[in-house]
Amino acid sequence: MRFGLFGSTQVKRGDSLDGSHGFARFIDYNVEAEAMGFHSSFVVEHHFTGFGQVSATLTLLAWLGARTTTLRLGTAVIVLPWHNPILLAEQAATIDLMTGGRLDLGIGKGYRYNEFAGFGIPMEEADARFEESLELLLKSWTSEERWSHKGRFYNFEDVVVEPPAAQKPHPPIWMGAGSQRSLDMVAQRDFNLLLDQISPIDAAIERFAYFRWRVEALGRPFNPYQVGLSRGLYVAKDAADRDAAIERRIAARARIDALAQRPDGKNTASLLSFDLGDAVRDGVLFGTVDEIAERIGRLHKAGIRYMLVTDGGSGIEGLRTFAREIIPAFADPEDATLATAAE
Amino acid sequence: MRFGLFGSTQVKRGDSLDGSHGFARFIDYNVEAEAMGFHSSFVVEHHFTGFGQVSATLTLLAWLGARTTTLRLGTAVIVLPWHNPILLAEQAATIDLMTGGRLDLGIGKGYRYNEFAGFGIPMEEADARFEESLELLLKSWTSEERWSHKGRFYNFEDVVVEPPAAQKPHPPIWMGAGSQRSLDMVAQRDFNLLLDQISPIDAAIERFAYFRWRVEALGRPFNPYQVGLSRGLYVAKDAADRDAAIERRIAARARIDALAQRPDGKNTASLLSFDLGDAVRDGVLFGTVDEIAERIGRLHKAGIRYMLVTDGGSGIEGLRTFAREIIPAFADPEDATLATAAE
Repeated sequence: MRFGLFGSTQVKRGDSLDGSHGFARFIDYNVEAEAMGFHSSFVVEHHFTGFGQVSATLTLLAWLGARTTTLRLGTAVIVLPWHNPILLAEQAATIDLMTGGRLDLGIGKGYRYNEFAGFGIPMEEADARFEESLELLLKSWTSEERWSHKGRFYNFEDVVVEPPAAQKPHPPIWMGAGSQRSLDMVAQRDFNLLLDQISPIDAAIERFAYFRWRVEALGRPFNPYQVGLSRGLYVAKDAADRDAAIERRIAARARIDALAQRPDGKNTASLLSFDLGDAVRDGVLFGTVDEIAERIGRLHKAGIRYMLVTDGGSGIEGLRTFAREIIPAFADPEDATLATAAE
Repeated sequence: MRFGLFGSTQVKRGDSLDGSHGFARFIDYNVEAEAMGFHSSFVVEHHFTGFGQVSATLTLLAWLGARTTTLRLGTAVIVLPWHNPILLAEQAATIDLMTGGRLDLGIGKGYRYNEFAGFGIPMEEADARFEESLELLLKSWTSEERWSHKGRFYNFEDVVVEPPAAQKPHPPIWMGAGSQRSLDMVAQRDFNLLLDQISPIDAAIERFAYFRWRVEALGRPFNPYQVGLSRGLYVAKDAADRDAAIERRIAARARIDALAQRPDGKNTASLLSFDLGDAVRDGVLFGTVDEIAERIGRLHKAGIRYMLVTDGGSGIEGLRTFAREIIPAFADPEDATLATAAE
């Protein structure tokens, strides 16, 4: 089984900006995670929150790339409607080139009303902008000839986009999905899948199985390393420590979901088919070593081979315990072969 | 006297993308330059050339920032009309934060017709886009409150731009200028100055003196470290080696200037008031150690204290000779004090 990181960090206005601020600690955390054997780090993109979430994700990943040697660098996710696709293709290719092909580009359409409003982009245009940008991104990386484009949102004339990316035909694309319709679309595009962040274990297994079925129905071999399942991680001392951490997690998640509030009263956070409390209590990797191993065992048994863990508060110490006491139990002989084929 | 680097590198489609490509060599060159005492590295931004000039300048600088500890990281220049100013402010602040305040943001309006055409942006809008973007960039870094903006090219609603930059009130802004009108404007804005790349020595001295006079006329103290004079460097074995390098330089520059050709027959490369051959022969730091030292001596005598050298072909060996045999002769006792005040 393969393990990566999924997460973010914060530096807000008014924070001390000496060398130990949130972004710097995040880099140190990732550098140590690489040494522990973690395979990847997927980083969010958000804007205008007021608490300093990572906004320039690729810039931070470029830094992280220079500090690491094997860690794959993921975005989770770059919101295409907010970026000029050519500038984005150039930035992504530059990182991919400098890292010798370690970029995993997670992309999405965006879901927070306040971010679209902030950028002055109607949220109703998200789908159309995503499609046009995705087409331009792929063309930027793969076209060896000069090309022009006249579209609804962008016009480009006689361009060849440089530098080239290291991975061919282009860095792997990852998309988040949860509903059957969105899982179908990821399968049809032949992209990799970022699955959930919070859901009951059985729901995650069901979505994974559905996606595998859809890929195979399209006549393609299914590789389990093309699905990263994201889960919160908290290595607890005991049951009381675990329960307190879970309640903090529920409260924190509710605050994050509030950022996806629309003025019309609707909320566009992705987790609306489950009760938040139930999904967290059943789904997260919060517990003692044995409890966490038992949950991962259920996922492993269902065929899941790639997990992305988000720090739920036990920090680098929790990650060390996880790497030392849990990861070795899930070493599969077939890991190396399948894993290589997935890139 | 203070010395920095000014330049670019290339990776084009079809190049070998192993670990020794142009971008990787550029990083190594810069890392060693820092160890030799170079103060800064200013990197160009260009698009669609077909020979792979650096396009995602801030992405490459983020990587360079992670590999260095004192080197200041400059853009020369980011062309504001092509970038969403909020995304740019976020990227620049992220680098400034990670480097503990080492970003020098050179900005410009753009001058190559083909780049504007490529981005689908009318070149006639360059001035207006520059002004609107600059205002938004500064507001993004300095506003502690949420703000909105309705402009000609951008609308933003209720945003606070994060992360904060480390340098206060914001990273130093640098602008290129050559004509009296443009030098006046840089002085009026109270920005730092990137002076020339190719011009006769006397012309560079004249522009420097004019800028100093304009700054002082505005009632501000003039700090010579706020002007970086850019020059090609080639440490030659002998006169024949020097002359051959100069002729190669003239030919290379002519090729670069051709990229600024407009369809109407005009050319918007910045060097049009001098004959290219004369300007190169008289102005560059191409020669033996003694010849180079003599030219820098003339510049030093005129008050110039900050030089940015571009590799004219003698590579890392030439830079080593320059650092060992020329830089020490221009160590000023007042360097440390004035230099600190300039940031």
